Amino acid sequence: MKSGHKAGKGRAAGAEDALLRRIADSAWMGKNAGLRVGIGDDAALFAPSAGYETVLTCDWFLEGVHFLREKHAAKAVGWKCLARAVSDIAAMGGAPRCFLLGLALPESHTGAWLKEFLGGLRRASRRLGCTLAGGDTTRTAQILIHVTAVGEVRRGEGVLRAGARPGDTIFVSGALGGAELGLRLLRSKRRGIRANDPLLRRHLYPEPRLALGRWLAEKRLATAMMDISDGLSTDLARLCAASGAGARIAAGQIPLGAASAEARELRVDALELALHGGEDYELLFTARKGQEIPRAYRGVPLTAIGEITAKREIVLAGRDGKIAALRAKGWDPFARS
Amino acid sequence: MKSGHKAGKGRAAGAEDALLRRIADSAWMGKNAGLRVGIGDDAALFAPSAGYETVLTCDWFLEGVHFLREKHAAKAVGWKCLARAVSDIAAMGGAPRCFLLGLALPESHTGAWLKEFLGGLRRASRRLGCTLAGGDTTRTAQILIHVTAVGEVRRGEGVLRAGARPGDTIFVSGALGGAELGLRLLRSKRRGIRANDPLLRRHLYPEPRLALGRWLAEKRLATAMMDISDGLSTDLARLCAASGAGARIAAGQIPLGAASAEARELRVDALELALHGGEDYELLFTARKGQEIPRAYRGVPLTAIGEITAKREIVLAGRDGKIAALRAKGWDPFARS
Repeated sequence: MKSGHKAGKGRAAGAEDALLRRIADSAWMGKNAGLRVGIGDDAALFAPSAGYETVLTCDWFLEGVHFLREKHAAKAVGWKCLARAVSDIAAMGGAPRCFLLGLALPESHTGAWLKEFLGGLRRASRRLGCTLAGGDTTRTAQILIHVTAVGEVRRGEGVLRAGARPGDTIFVSGALGGAELGLRLLRSKRRGIRANDPLLRRHLYPEPRLALGRWLAEKRLATAMMDISDGLSTDLARLCAASGAGARIAAGQIPLGAASAEARELRVDALELALHGGEDYELLFTARKGQEIPRAYRGVPLTAIGEITAKREIVLAGRDGKIAALRAKGWDPFARS
Repeated sequence: MKSGHKAGKGRAAGAEDALLRRIADSAWMGKNAGLRVGIGDDAALFAPSAGYETVLTCDWFLEGVHFLREKHAAKAVGWKCLARAVSDIAAMGGAPRCFLLGLALPESHTGAWLKEFLGGLRRASRRLGCTLAGGDTTRTAQILIHVTAVGEVRRGEGVLRAGARPGDTIFVSGALGGAELGLRLLRSKRRGIRANDPLLRRHLYPEPRLALGRWLAEKRLATAMMDISDGLSTDLARLCAASGAGARIAAGQIPLGAASAEARELRVDALELALHGGEDYELLFTARKGQEIPRAYRGVPLTAIGEITAKREIVLAGRDGKIAALRAKGWDPFARS
């Protein structure tokens, strides 16, 4: 863990090193993480397991883009920045090992905010079995977070997006749309919403489907897999593009995470949220037709929502039986509003 | 390579995916990088070499902190963001393998600027033997770059900061202060400075000392090593702190990279720049007393500048023979001005 460098005015060293020590001291250190050298040197040294491939992924988590300073508690920011990066490892069927933290902060946030952030990060780190291995800090006006998660998967077991074939059944884990509804509740400024509200928890404290992803990979049940981070309509289109195929899904089969009294109060359509809302971090996967998939794995529902088609288009069969093209309307930071 | 997610207004997907394709298409793809799966899935899959440890490091490179939009050409930004991350791998004695690119851009910079940036990045990637493996993009008002570099070092050969012992001789590679002078030249707005000016090149296009670092590690010549990114005074203090020791260096022995007509014109003191200027990305290392170290390795000078001491303080012997404490005055983003 070492500083970003700005060649410029000479400054007394020490403040940043002290900050790095605070981060290191707060970190959860797993016993078997394979970390030979962690924070404190130019780089971390990590011992890969024989017969395994390394899984590498990174994620931005930026104030004003991915979270709001005044709306999102620091401990939720700490949890979520790691959980969402680790979700990509789950989507490959891998197990997390360690992570690097890029953290740029205003000086005003190096006190209480940082302490709370590190608490949330530590909880996620311990829960997900992912040890802080190093990183880089610097000072900026806005809170910038970048997490690189490193995992492992047995050679040949990593599940890609490209393996779906026409006829394969499409599954999703859990329910979709709840995280988006949680965000809307947070934004709605309604009184009486508590941090432990299940919908808020879906948005603030996502749980990557690690056990499910590993099980599907080890048993070779999934032909293709990814996590749903930007919304089902967008992510299913990506899986199909990678596989050179299309898909037909049925509106009536999609498990709705936002079919609640709160959704009705906010006048949101639970199906719309399930199709286009993001950040559920559920797994989207395909299995060969006829492959038996249980209805749930360790309490997480697994639902067949449609099938892969040869024709390269994504269509939705409505509850009325009508077939219509499903446009990708999930999150795209570069699309014009 | 996939998007950062902002749960919010639904948007048409596709613009970001198109951007990712442009980045992927521009990337240099090494033949033996061990990348089983690169850009385009949830995560990259990388095959580690048997008997090697993985080297992991990351670096911020932020507009307004590490570079200026109007002063630094996009191709130099592309080169440097990777070179400085790879320098940390050199400092462990490792070889780079692949990297992840976190790139957040204003929409105005997704055209010509991005093209030039990717050109510089591609040149660095090929030169350093470090393949783009994935990353994350999103849209922001300022240009934010975060690079995670992944390398390898034979198990047990990684050179840490902590191995220096009293009596060890302290060496630096190359010359110090040139990059800082280059930055000052760039800022001085003097006419007639060309991009191929050697001092500007030191600042804009640093070359990590990969071959030297690997040689020192393989031959087990270095007892401790790090790269000089924040300035000799700051980085030597870090090496000594890690080793539980101190150091005495001699002003007259420090190789000056800024002892030029330009330095005199700008009225800068070449020794001050060598002691406290950053971003030279030279290697600072120690060797057991009496260990033979050549005067140069592959054309890069190696200079003994002092020795490790048992007393935990860093002192400088001036050209007049006077001994004085050497304060760490390199870059520290969290120090008060």
